[in-house]
Amino acid sequence: MKKISEAVVRRLPIYLVVLNDLHKRDIQTVSSQDLGNKLDLNPAQIRKDLAYFGEFGRKGIGYDVSYLIEKIRQILKLDQPLSVGLVGAGNLGRALCNYNTYLKDNMKIMAVFDAHPSVVGTQINSLTVQAMDDLKEKVEELHIVIGIITVPAVEAQNVADRFVDAGVKAILNFAPTILRVPEHIRIHYADFTRELLSLAYYLEKNEEEDDEPAVD
Amino acid sequence: MKKISEAVVRRLPIYLVVLNDLHKRDIQTVSSQDLGNKLDLNPAQIRKDLAYFGEFGRKGIGYDVSYLIEKIRQILKLDQPLSVGLVGAGNLGRALCNYNTYLKDNMKIMAVFDAHPSVVGTQINSLTVQAMDDLKEKVEELHIVIGIITVPAVEAQNVADRFVDAGVKAILNFAPTILRVPEHIRIHYADFTRELLSLAYYLEKNEEEDDEPAVD
Repeated sequence: MKKISEAVVRRLPIYLVVLNDLHKRDIQTVSSQDLGNKLDLNPAQIRKDLAYFGEFGRKGIGYDVSYLIEKIRQILKLDQPLSVGLVGAGNLGRALCNYNTYLKDNMKIMAVFDAHPSVVGTQINSLTVQAMDDLKEKVEELHIVIGIITVPAVEAQNVADRFVDAGVKAILNFAPTILRVPEHIRIHYADFTRELLSLAYYLEKNEEEDDEPAVD
Repeated sequence: MKKISEAVVRRLPIYLVVLNDLHKRDIQTVSSQDLGNKLDLNPAQIRKDLAYFGEFGRKGIGYDVSYLIEKIRQILKLDQPLSVGLVGAGNLGRALCNYNTYLKDNMKIMAVFDAHPSVVGTQINSLTVQAMDDLKEKVEELHIVIGIITVPAVEAQNVADRFVDAGVKAILNFAPTILRVPEHIRIHYADFTRELLSLAYYLEKNEEEDDEPAVD
């Protein structure tokens, strides 16, 4: 299969959200036009994205929803179980554990760790918060391949080092700081302040219209 | 000023995180090479990004950290106060309110709302959770321009409609669902499952190396 660009890889989960929704409502086929409307994307873009993995669409009928779900899950490697570990059992960590129910796609948070003795042993749904000293052993035992970091910025690098040492292959970092990891570790940043700050940029035009009417 | 591409706008907050860190450590100049190392980005890409808003770098000296911070804040419209409102005072909502301390850049969550009577009136740091019935009035009173949605997927569209009706200009949605908003409203998705799912794709190569040694 051709190498898929990062932009496409990031769109695939969005397609999956919409397709799962259609599937739940017993809708069996969907056109690129419909998908485009739902996602605010150009239908030509969608057709191009989906053409990466072969021809699924049939002219005048559209895409088979179940088949497309299966294919995207397969491409995203969601057709086999993926274990996730999380460090930082604060509000954000707890919120993410609650997402477990959305993660039908064989991807589950299997273990939660925290450095603070007062939190260790407490429950988050069916998970018991574990001590950092047990991280390496648990990562190996549970075959955890993705580590999520939801600790304060100053503690994040240390947690990343521990995850790498324990053998995870990818990190999703929510701490608002840049982390150094070895070349072979994939790291994604999910810092919400970044989303918020880039959103501010797009307010510019409206703001100017409101606050500075052209007077000359 | 030239129109800045979305990819660049999304990188600017990342530059800001690093630059703020350098500034805190009293470092006054930085080269594109240094920035590139810290961010795992190509220095040529960084020079190109920063060249969008005029020439700040000086050969052999690099970029003036303070000036760059000021300029990026200005471009991202962070040099003037921006009020944010949030609906959904669950774990995620509470976690985001705790980020308020990171949001030095004049952007602050000013009000939190929730539909559940048992949550209304409770405190999150200095904020008191308010009833949905007060949303419109408060959005106007506090000049809230950005709405954050941290409610379950099934409630998200209704909350988006309320925000739009109240007059916000942009929405940051954390619910794992696609929302319909009018053309003039900017919407960003910060659904963490999406980050996690796209991360899975990049595990493919390693997994195959581990699990399927070439035998023929």
